[in-house]
Formats: sequence, C-alpha cells, structure tokens
Amino acid sequence: MKRKKGYFSISAVAKMFSVHQQTIRLYEKEGLINPKRSSGNTRLFSEEDVDRLEEVIYLTHKLGINLAGVEMILKLQKQIKKMQTDMNALFKKLQKELSDESEMHKQIIKEAANKISEVKKRKKVALSPENVLKNLE
Amino acid sequence: MKRKKGYFSISAVAKMFSVHQQTIRLYEKEGLINPKRSSGNTRLFSEEDVDRLEEVIYLTHKLGINLAGVEMILKLQKQIKKMQTDMNALFKKLQKELSDESEMHKQIIKEAANKISEVKKRKKVALSPENVLKNLE
Repeated sequence: MKRKKGYFSISAVAKMFSVHQQTIRLYEKEGLINPKRSSGNTRLFSEEDVDRLEEVIYLTHKLGINLAGVEMILKLQKQIKKMQTDMNALFKKLQKELSDESEMHKQIIKEAANKISEVKKRKKVALSPENVLKNLE
Repeated sequence: MKRKKGYFSISAVAKMFSVHQQTIRLYEKEGLINPKRSSGNTRLFSEEDVDRLEEVIYLTHKLGINLAGVEMILKLQKQIKKMQTDMNALFKKLQKELSDESEMHKQIIKEAANKISEVKKRKKVALSPENVLKNLE
C-alpha cells in the first residue's frame, strides 16, 4: 500500500482503516489532520499523519466523540506529551547537576585531605633532628 | 442562592448557569458530575461540583462538544493537573537536595580550611625557639 518516498495515498489510507475517502477529507477540512500535497496536488500521508488519523478514527468511531471534542482532545494530548518531554528533560538536567555537585564535593574532600597530609609531612620534616639543628645555626 | 453548610441546590445551580434542571440531571446520569445527597435525597452541590458543572456547560454549550468528548476531556484535564502537581513536587524536592548538597559542600570547605590553619599553627608553635631547644634537651 506504500507509495514512493514512504508516503501513503488517500485511497490506501481509506482502505487501511475501512473508512470513506470523504470522511478523511472532512477530517482534513476540520483541521484534524494535515497531510502535505504532491506537486500534482495529491494528498501525501506520512507515517505521522496516518497515526494521527488512526487516533481521530478511534475517538470518533469507537468512542463516539464529535469533531469539536476530538479537536480539544488532540490539543490536550499534545500538551500532555510536551509536559512529559519537559519533565524528562528537567529530571535529567537536575540529576546531572546533583551528580556534578557530588563529584565536586568528592574532589574538595580529596584535595583537603592531600593538603592536610602535606602540611603534616612538612611539619615532620621541619622537626627532624637535622632541621632542628639547622634552625639553631 | 447559597444553602445551608455551603452547598447549592439544583434549582440554584440551574439559575446560576441558565440551564434546565433536566440538563443537570442528565450530566449527573452520564457521570460527568457527582453531587452528594442530603438525608432527604436532595442534591447538594459543593463549590467543587459547581466548578465542574461550569466546565461541563462550557464544553457542551460553548464549544459544542458532545458528552462522550466531555468525559474524555475531563479525564485528560485531571491527568494534566496531576502531572503539574507531581512536577512541582519533584522540582521542589530536587531543589532542596541541591541546596542541601551545596550546604554540606560549604561546611566541608570550612572544616578543611580550619583543619589546615590549625595544623599550620601547631607547626609554627613546634618550630618556636623555645620548642626547638626543648626538642634538643
């Protein structure tokens, strides 16, 4: 059923979902789907258009929701999808910040420990018999 | 228009939105609103029931959405509200974790600085002429 360049024709899509081409044209007129057109003005349905059409058909034919309802539902579903994407991005960002902060924190502890042991070592050297004598010269 | 204990009667609510009581009863039958009942079986509309009814009337009367659509829209709106609440809670929690981590980090730097200056001070005391002589005794 596939047409060149991975697009589907309106007749292929109508067969796919057992609906009239007129129904699909109505959904397009109502702005629920928006397939692009070929240079010869033929509708070209991408995979995404087909998925969206499938959702519209499910809402209208299976759930009995009218087109005004479908329009709002598609908007709300888009909003939910965006919120989920934003939430994931925010979560990842904050996780990275926490892990960076924790890494910096470990580094500071390590540096402080090194500094303390270095100062202690220098103190030992300074107090060695040779140095004590040198201090008296 | 208010009735005892902050509830509204069906007639008050019908007047409030200029709809028939029958319309409100239909919405209740379809499960879109669920006002509780008094001991005498009278419908009692809380502020929340009134808000929900207002939303149902807006979707049906203003946007022309049918009841099947309204049902799904209310569910999606509830989901969006829950996601917003969850997102805020997550955001606050992670902000607190970041600020706690940062506080701990400052505390460690402070303690390390104190420790280093304390060790340096002890080294100075150890190298004072009195102590150097004592070391030789």
